[in-house]
Amino acid sequence: MFKVVKGGITAPKGYKASGIACGVKKSGKKDLALIFSEEPAKVASLFSTNRVKAAPILVSQEILKKYQTIRAVVVNSGNANACTGKDGLSKAKEMVNLVSNLLKLPYPNVLVASTGIIGEPLPIDKIRRGIKKAVKNLSKEGSSDAAKAIMTTDTFPKEIAIEFKIDNQKVRIGGMAKGAGMIAPYMATTLSFFTTDALIETSFLRQTFQTAIDKSFNSITVDGDMSTNDMSVILANGKAGNQEIKSNSLWAKVFKEALEFTTSELAKMIIQDGEGATKFIQIEVRRANSIKEARKVGFKIANSPLVKTAFFGEDPNWGRIMGAIGSAGVPINPEKIDILIDTLLLVKNGVKANFNQKEAKKIFKKKRINLIIDLKRGKEGTVIYTTDLSYEYVKINSAYRT
Amino acid sequence: MFKVVKGGITAPKGYKASGIACGVKKSGKKDLALIFSEEPAKVASLFSTNRVKAAPILVSQEILKKYQTIRAVVVNSGNANACTGKDGLSKAKEMVNLVSNLLKLPYPNVLVASTGIIGEPLPIDKIRRGIKKAVKNLSKEGSSDAAKAIMTTDTFPKEIAIEFKIDNQKVRIGGMAKGAGMIAPYMATTLSFFTTDALIETSFLRQTFQTAIDKSFNSITVDGDMSTNDMSVILANGKAGNQEIKSNSLWAKVFKEALEFTTSELAKMIIQDGEGATKFIQIEVRRANSIKEARKVGFKIANSPLVKTAFFGEDPNWGRIMGAIGSAGVPINPEKIDILIDTLLLVKNGVKANFNQKEAKKIFKKKRINLIIDLKRGKEGTVIYTTDLSYEYVKINSAYRT
Repeated sequence: MFKVVKGGITAPKGYKASGIACGVKKSGKKDLALIFSEEPAKVASLFSTNRVKAAPILVSQEILKKYQTIRAVVVNSGNANACTGKDGLSKAKEMVNLVSNLLKLPYPNVLVASTGIIGEPLPIDKIRRGIKKAVKNLSKEGSSDAAKAIMTTDTFPKEIAIEFKIDNQKVRIGGMAKGAGMIAPYMATTLSFFTTDALIETSFLRQTFQTAIDKSFNSITVDGDMSTNDMSVILANGKAGNQEIKSNSLWAKVFKEALEFTTSELAKMIIQDGEGATKFIQIEVRRANSIKEARKVGFKIANSPLVKTAFFGEDPNWGRIMGAIGSAGVPINPEKIDILIDTLLLVKNGVKANFNQKEAKKIFKKKRINLIIDLKRGKEGTVIYTTDLSYEYVKINSAYRT
Repeated sequence: MFKVVKGGITAPKGYKASGIACGVKKSGKKDLALIFSEEPAKVASLFSTNRVKAAPILVSQEILKKYQTIRAVVVNSGNANACTGKDGLSKAKEMVNLVSNLLKLPYPNVLVASTGIIGEPLPIDKIRRGIKKAVKNLSKEGSSDAAKAIMTTDTFPKEIAIEFKIDNQKVRIGGMAKGAGMIAPYMATTLSFFTTDALIETSFLRQTFQTAIDKSFNSITVDGDMSTNDMSVILANGKAGNQEIKSNSLWAKVFKEALEFTTSELAKMIIQDGEGATKFIQIEVRRANSIKEARKVGFKIANSPLVKTAFFGEDPNWGRIMGAIGSAGVPINPEKIDILIDTLLLVKNGVKANFNQKEAKKIFKKKRINLIIDLKRGKEGTVIYTTDLSYEYVKINSAYRT
C-alpha cells in the first residue's frame, strides 16, 4: 500500500528544512531546526496537557487560534524555555516574528517549539543568529540536519518518509521526532513534526492525526504525565495534486494507514533509543472492558520500576507483573489473568503455569520481548511500548545537567 | 508526654514473641516470627488494596470476620504465598490452625502474614517445623528476633517501644515493621505489627489506627499501589489496668499522639532503609484545596524517576519538580507555585528565584532534604516521605531473585 522512501520532512513536495548549531548546546552540536512550507499548509497539532506549559507551547497555541494555515516551524533544543515567565513568552514570540520577517511571510503564521533544560533564560542572542543561519540554509536536503538539531539525549536522529498513491497520484508523508529521553512516564519531552503534500480536508486531517498520535506517541507516554514542552504537528500543503481526501472518501483509509505507520515507526524509534534502555518491551493487553481500562493496566506495568528492573535483570519475575496489574485501579479478577511472554504461558488463571524456567530465561534474554496480558473481562485491547530500567538510566538522569 | 523505652512488640505487658530460621530463606537467616498475647486482644487492621491479594491476607480477613479478639500473629518472610491459588489458601489456613493447636487456644483466632517472592509454592514442611520452634521459643525478650525474622531486603530490623501515662497508669505501645524495599510506589510490601497493653474501646482503637497509618505508612506508599501482601495490625490486650480509653475521654488525645509517634518512627525507619537510598527526602505540600490534592502533588513528585535521579545526582534541577507538579492531575496555577529547599527559595511564582547556585548545591548534598511546595490554592497540606533513585536500587531489584 505504501513504501518507505529516503529522507524525512522534506521528502513531500514543497517543503524545505535546515538544522544548524547556534551555541545553545554547550557541546557545539546542532540545536536549531527550521521547517518551511512553500505554500500555506493546513495544520493539525497536539500539545502537552501538563498544567505547567512552556512558553513556545503557549505562543504556538495562540498562533493556531489566529491562523488557519502555517508556513514554518522553528525548533530549538538545549533549552526548554519553560518556567521562564514573561521573559520566556516574549522570546518565543520573537522567534516567531523573526522567522516570519526573514522569510518575508505576509503573516507570522509560524509555530515555535523548544526542548532541553527547564527554567533557564533562553539565550536569545544565540537564537537570533541561529535563525538567520537556519533561514539561509533551508534546502530540499535539510531534513536530516533538522532531525539532528532537535535531539537532546537522543543517540540517533529519527526521521522517516513514505510514499503511496491517492487517486493514481503519488503522495508522501515525512516525519521527524525527538526522543523521549525517558520512556513512558513523567517529563519525557517528545517533539514530532510531520509534513505531507496530500490535499486533505482539515477536519479529517485533525481527526486522523489525533488517532495516529494516540496509537503511537500517546502509547509510549502516560496521558497527563506529559512534559512541559510536548508537541506534535502535521502540515499538509496539498502540492501532490491528488483528489482531496475527505473522511467519507475512498482514500481516507489509505491515508489513515499511511499516517499511522509513519507515527508508529517514529514512536518505536524513540523507545529503541530510550535512555539506558537494553530491551524493547511490547505490552499487549487483551480482553479489557474498554480501551481506557486496557491502557491503565498496560501503563501500570510499563511504569512499574520493579517490573522494569526485573526485565533489565532478565528475571522472569511474573509476580511483579501480577502485582502491577492488581494495583492498576481496574477491578480485575486475579483468578482470570493469563500472562504470556512471546508464546510461553507464564501465568494461567492467576497462578503459575507449568512452564520451563530455562525457556522463560531464554526469552527474557532477548532484546525485544512481547508481553501479553489477558484479562478475560471484555472485548477491548491495546498495545503499549516501553523499556527496561538500567544503571545507565540512573546515570544519564542524575548527571544530565551538572 | 511519652518516652521511648527499650524493646519492641514485647515491651507492653502480656505479650511474648519469637523469631527463628526454618529454611524458607536460602540464606539461612531468620524467616518466621510469632507474636502471642496472653489474653484475648482487641484488634484493628489494615490490608493491601491491591486486587491481587496474597493468601495470608484473605485468610486473615476471614479470621477477623469470625472473631472479635486475636491471640497470635504468625509471619513468614522469604515467600509471599501470593498468586498461589487454592494451595496457597490451604497452607495459610494450616499456619493459623497449627499455631492455634500448639498454643492450645480455644479458637483459631490467629492472624497470618507473609512477605517475599510472589508465585512460588509455600514450602509448608519447613513452615510447620518453624512454627513448632517458634512456639517453643516464645519469650518476653523475643521482640528483636521477631523483627529480624520479618525482614526481606531490609538492612536493619525495625522496632520501637514507648511508654506514657493514662489515668496515672503506665501504658506501653510496641511496634515492628518490615521495610518496603522500594519506597513510595509499586509493590513495596510493608508489614507492621503493633501491640499495646492499653485498655481501649475497639471503635476508638480502629479509628485512631487508621489515622496513624494514613499519616505514616500510607504517606510513604501511594494509595492503590500497595503490594499483594501489605498488612498493618495492632493488638490491645488491656493489661495496663488503665481507665478505658474512649473517643470522648480525656486520654483519647494522649493515646492518639503516642500511637502516631510510634507508627511515624517506624515508617521513617523504612524510608531510611530504602533500597539503594542515599537521601531521605521530606516533601511538604502547603496550601492545597484538600489533603487529597496535596497528596496527589506530593506523591507525583515523590514517584517521579526524573526528580529522584536529580536528588541522587545532587542537582538542583527544580524544573523537573515543576514538571511533576504540573502533571499531578491537580488544576494548579503554575504562576503561583513556590518551591523551597530547606529555607532556600528556588522558585517564586513559577519562575526561578534569585538564589545562590552554590548554596543550593550545598543543600542538595545533604543526606536529609526538606522540599516545600506552596500551591497557594487553599488551606490544606500534607507531608510525604521518599528517597532518591540510585544505581544501587537498580542493582538490588534486577538481581533480587536470580
